[in-house]
Amino acid sequence: MKTFHITKPDEAIREQLLHKINNLTKPIGSLGRLEELAVQIGLIQQTDTPALKRPNHIIFAADHGIAAEGVSLSPQAVTWQQTENFMKGGAAINFLCRQHGFELHVVDAGVDYNFSPHLGIIDKKVRCGTHNYLYQAAMTERECKRCLASGAEVVRDVSAGGCNIVSFGEMGIGNTSSSSLWMSCFTGLPLERCVGAGTGLDSAGVSRKYNILREAQNRYRGKGATTDVMRYFGGLEMVMAVGGILQAAELGMIILIDGFIMTNCLLAAARLYPHVLSYAIFGHESGESVHRLLLEHLRAVPLLHLGMRLGEGAGAVCAFPIVDSAVRMMNEMDSFQRAEVTKYF
Amino acid sequence: MKTFHITKPDEAIREQLLHKINNLTKPIGSLGRLEELAVQIGLIQQTDTPALKRPNHIIFAADHGIAAEGVSLSPQAVTWQQTENFMKGGAAINFLCRQHGFELHVVDAGVDYNFSPHLGIIDKKVRCGTHNYLYQAAMTERECKRCLASGAEVVRDVSAGGCNIVSFGEMGIGNTSSSSLWMSCFTGLPLERCVGAGTGLDSAGVSRKYNILREAQNRYRGKGATTDVMRYFGGLEMVMAVGGILQAAELGMIILIDGFIMTNCLLAAARLYPHVLSYAIFGHESGESVHRLLLEHLRAVPLLHLGMRLGEGAGAVCAFPIVDSAVRMMNEMDSFQRAEVTKYF
Repeated sequence: MKTFHITKPDEAIREQLLHKINNLTKPIGSLGRLEELAVQIGLIQQTDTPALKRPNHIIFAADHGIAAEGVSLSPQAVTWQQTENFMKGGAAINFLCRQHGFELHVVDAGVDYNFSPHLGIIDKKVRCGTHNYLYQAAMTERECKRCLASGAEVVRDVSAGGCNIVSFGEMGIGNTSSSSLWMSCFTGLPLERCVGAGTGLDSAGVSRKYNILREAQNRYRGKGATTDVMRYFGGLEMVMAVGGILQAAELGMIILIDGFIMTNCLLAAARLYPHVLSYAIFGHESGESVHRLLLEHLRAVPLLHLGMRLGEGAGAVCAFPIVDSAVRMMNEMDSFQRAEVTKYF
Repeated sequence: MKTFHITKPDEAIREQLLHKINNLTKPIGSLGRLEELAVQIGLIQQTDTPALKRPNHIIFAADHGIAAEGVSLSPQAVTWQQTENFMKGGAAINFLCRQHGFELHVVDAGVDYNFSPHLGIIDKKVRCGTHNYLYQAAMTERECKRCLASGAEVVRDVSAGGCNIVSFGEMGIGNTSSSSLWMSCFTGLPLERCVGAGTGLDSAGVSRKYNILREAQNRYRGKGATTDVMRYFGGLEMVMAVGGILQAAELGMIILIDGFIMTNCLLAAARLYPHVLSYAIFGHESGESVHRLLLEHLRAVPLLHLGMRLGEGAGAVCAFPIVDSAVRMMNEMDSFQRAEVTKYF
């Protein structure tokens, strides 16, 4: 298993950051979460003049054997169709990346389809979709390791290009099911509290999905170690995202997280390396109802709450301007002294 | 009194807007509030290919006679100092305007200070601060009319420059007091529920502020007509903002509102012309606790909740990228048909 060297940012600089923030021309604390973000980013980058460089968004895509059980409203073919759509530029994530200056990378972690190499999808295909975990582990240990290593590789590549802030998204019909199982296993919450409507199931559909997942959980014979749960309940794109998140933290990058699935990937990453949380900014609270519960478990309050439930990492990219504002606050605002404004409180 | 011609946007186009939104390559409703915004903007602009043109931010600044009673923690001089600071580019609103491509206009509605004409502040000074409404009306009827007309004039000017989206902010030590009185008079809520901490009063300070404002409210002998309340409790910058808001609605512009003070200005505007609300987008829920109550009264859920309590209209400008995303969604996303993706739900 690939290991990562993830350290907690040195706290020594915190006082300097707070001193600077509290002397900007505004009442103390009046920029709210921008001030919190400025402290977090200052700690990550160990400077009071932080910078955001070449933001990159990485979408991992893969198929899920469990989809055969009808846990999702969408046909499995939507995974490859939508993955191709990302490359054509017509999906939601495309206009968001264009709007906020993100370079977009789409990674085939295990889509059950042969993409034309001309599309520009990054080929890290481990296998054509996971096994159906109602009957067997979603992937082998070797495949799981390969996913972690490949996710890390993609992040090392964008980092080498000068990027210091990365966000993650996913595409994979059936991956809210894997996420529910990860969440239940990692948080200890009963499965029924971890199952939501995905992209739009009605209550009968949610109930059916729950019954299938409960059966899968009952049949699981592993001991619940983090990597074993990851491997058993998949998906390939999720394990790859865990690898990407861990690599980003090791490299001291800012990590934008959104959505039910990516929050589960962060949770898995944090069980392996707790300090990864110091590098994570939560972009958006999903319209997927169980996401809130997961966020509470992580004591996280995302920057946005726009009722989106799209996947693709859309909420993370949407939150970028707020992160950017926090950085600009540190670099562009005057102090009371420099502006010759009476210091008020 | 200047009159405005403000119509409710024609609803006939709504079906066309929904049809387009529901055929974009995403599960129905999965872009959450972006979809709601797209409908609102489509109605305002009467098109399913909306556009945001030359965003402008207008800050109205003025002083308040009531400041002499010690209702604010900040000395009154902060009004002119901070107004000058806006022109030097070092305040929070400056980096936010630069970040989001807003042209910034700073209007002297009644600051008790003589600014150098070289600074570029728009001179609409009605008088050097309001009277202290503990003893008399904040301004005369004539001054109130002049404020409304001047606010409208500033907006007509930016509209003539090609702008179709405008946000408003304010600067005026003491103006949360005026806002509390407006709120209480306009909503019928008892004054004690309308008084908050401003830029950072402690509970003794809030209590003192409340006692002064209660006394002012007790001494008020008017009949509570909207314009009379506006005139009596001021401020000049707030009445001017009401004029600006009404003019923007008449011109069919998108209006970004944030904060306790600007929400009160919108409420005043809506009491005069209810359809103004069709043009308003609520950017940010303030850290000023009473703002939430006011928003509930208006049944408004702002786009952001970042705990900012700065004034200047910072929260409105911060929300711009989300509005921009809604517009891009309508113009840049593919339909299922065009993208050849199986329609899913």
